[in-house]
Amino acid sequence: MRERQIRIGITHGDINGIGYEVILKTFSDPQMLELCTPIIYGSPKVATYHRKALELTTNFSVIQTAEEAEPYKLSIIHTCEDELKVDLGMPNPEVGRSAVDALERAIADFQKGEIDALVTAPINKHTIQSENFAFAGHTEYIQAKMGEEYTPLMILLKEDFRMALVTGHIPVSDVAKHITVETIKEKLRIFHRSLKVDFGINNPRIAVFALNPHAGDNGLIGTEEQTIIIPAMEEAVAEGIQCFGPFPADGFMGSGSYLQFDGILAMYHDQGLAPFKALAMEEGVNFTAGLPIVRTSPAHGTAYDIAGKGLASESSFRHAVYTAIDIVRSRIQEETISANPLRKHFYDKRDDSDKLKLDTIQDED
Amino acid sequence: MRERQIRIGITHGDINGIGYEVILKTFSDPQMLELCTPIIYGSPKVATYHRKALELTTNFSVIQTAEEAEPYKLSIIHTCEDELKVDLGMPNPEVGRSAVDALERAIADFQKGEIDALVTAPINKHTIQSENFAFAGHTEYIQAKMGEEYTPLMILLKEDFRMALVTGHIPVSDVAKHITVETIKEKLRIFHRSLKVDFGINNPRIAVFALNPHAGDNGLIGTEEQTIIIPAMEEAVAEGIQCFGPFPADGFMGSGSYLQFDGILAMYHDQGLAPFKALAMEEGVNFTAGLPIVRTSPAHGTAYDIAGKGLASESSFRHAVYTAIDIVRSRIQEETISANPLRKHFYDKRDDSDKLKLDTIQDED
Repeated sequence: MRERQIRIGITHGDINGIGYEVILKTFSDPQMLELCTPIIYGSPKVATYHRKALELTTNFSVIQTAEEAEPYKLSIIHTCEDELKVDLGMPNPEVGRSAVDALERAIADFQKGEIDALVTAPINKHTIQSENFAFAGHTEYIQAKMGEEYTPLMILLKEDFRMALVTGHIPVSDVAKHITVETIKEKLRIFHRSLKVDFGINNPRIAVFALNPHAGDNGLIGTEEQTIIIPAMEEAVAEGIQCFGPFPADGFMGSGSYLQFDGILAMYHDQGLAPFKALAMEEGVNFTAGLPIVRTSPAHGTAYDIAGKGLASESSFRHAVYTAIDIVRSRIQEETISANPLRKHFYDKRDDSDKLKLDTIQDED
Repeated sequence: MRERQIRIGITHGDINGIGYEVILKTFSDPQMLELCTPIIYGSPKVATYHRKALELTTNFSVIQTAEEAEPYKLSIIHTCEDELKVDLGMPNPEVGRSAVDALERAIADFQKGEIDALVTAPINKHTIQSENFAFAGHTEYIQAKMGEEYTPLMILLKEDFRMALVTGHIPVSDVAKHITVETIKEKLRIFHRSLKVDFGINNPRIAVFALNPHAGDNGLIGTEEQTIIIPAMEEAVAEGIQCFGPFPADGFMGSGSYLQFDGILAMYHDQGLAPFKALAMEEGVNFTAGLPIVRTSPAHGTAYDIAGKGLASESSFRHAVYTAIDIVRSRIQEETISANPLRKHFYDKRDDSDKLKLDTIQDED
């Protein structure tokens, strides 16, 4: 058994958006502090500014290193320069830099074992760009820090409704050429493994969306279903991955079939995220699967338009914290279970008798 | 004032699907017969078969011509051969032909003024193909019958949530090249006019979706927003069409913004229909705007898998009938209003006085 609470690192993101608002609102509930030890990577001064502006009462302790964080308390580590000025709703490269600083320190702490998971408040993808940061977003940056041998998979989820994408932030004109047998298989493998290890689903069922309207209607509206998606799925099934489809996205969503699968693999951004967010925005959580670090984030962005107005709902952020905790627990359990596995006992298929062959030993695979 | 009830022609579609089930269930409610005079184009024998198999009690009168249809009664015109055999859930080209026969007769009756609107039960797009019918579906066929000068626009709607598409049944690999300034403007014009005339909205507000994820993120993920969509919208605005955007589809749906517009124009099939059906499948209605005939249909298909089982919900079909009635009424009203317009009275802008210039006459525009 682990001796300490799960420690969640929280990066403050863009301080001119709703980041601090949703963080402080989430941890104003003392029950949250019984579930985890939250450590904010950011600025106590900026946190105080937002607390005051929004008339919140959330308390926090300022610490120097993650080691000092105490259970049942919200802690904050200073990771950026003091003169940082809040200018609500305004994009600012200095603010972008402070978001990167927070991220860098949090990841270093993860690598030292100081935190168990990372929840990231939203950043502005334009203002964070600099010499030190040339990444499309959080996911790409974290992947680079973890090592190129890992392939991340973004999963949007709300309870048992989990949506992953084969392709992400690319123009629609490029989507079809990025749909390949190899990519689909790779995403299916990562999704399958994540559903098992991160969500504790023993034999997960994955629904795969078609690329074209009406799943190509037998080749009348595109052929990728026949030439790419179905072959990829067949190979995945041969590897023991349960997957079904390809389904036309609109009919699948309309019939409520998404409730019958553990995960859905959409072919491109809007195909997966437009219906996901239509149904599940409020409590939707973004989880980056496939990496050693457990990283979640809320489904919303910086929301400059409502920054500092007290209007932001913390629901998505709160669920991002819950999800991170659940996944850390699930990984610990998986590790514990597989640490000293029992030898498998099985029936020899060539033998018709019902007798269990306890003397048969199977090598580890 | 019109002297008779609105007459709704109903084509029976694929008799091996759930068409008759949803038709008969809809008109088992006597209140429906107070709203319109429904005339089924199909087969009394097949209707009887379904009524018996599903233990329904809906009554209907067999008539020879639409003229004979009486108010407060469900009538059925025989439009196909007698030996037509029902084989539930099975695709059959003969059945496909009978769907075309029904459609042909109904449209001829519309052109003679016998019916005011058309509600089509679902067909199987594969089995209807023949020498007489080489169209992708209902919409293309009806357009051809109405004349090539009309451009149809498919609108999916549920109450005030209306979704139209710039491109439809084309492969995803072809979407980007079909997005042109001209096409977007044309769709905006038809949508705008339909919202005014068919839905009685005086100055409709249309939201336009971006093509690319995050609306192209200032050109990082595709440039069509800058080079095509925004210029098309600007030209539309100059024509007096209120349109807004382009919005990223996922965030727009997630924030519930769709409730604040009279219509949404999506760039392609799954982008519009996946979120629409996720939210509104059950009562969703398909309306073909831009044509002289008012034509609606349910959002579902033949549903072979549940044909004859009594499981089909008639909700979408019923709403297709309601919508057809509403649109016919709205068009009549529009016609009545614009038949003898009052001369416009206006203030001369150059004049600072508050006096209405009743003596000023404006030419008709």
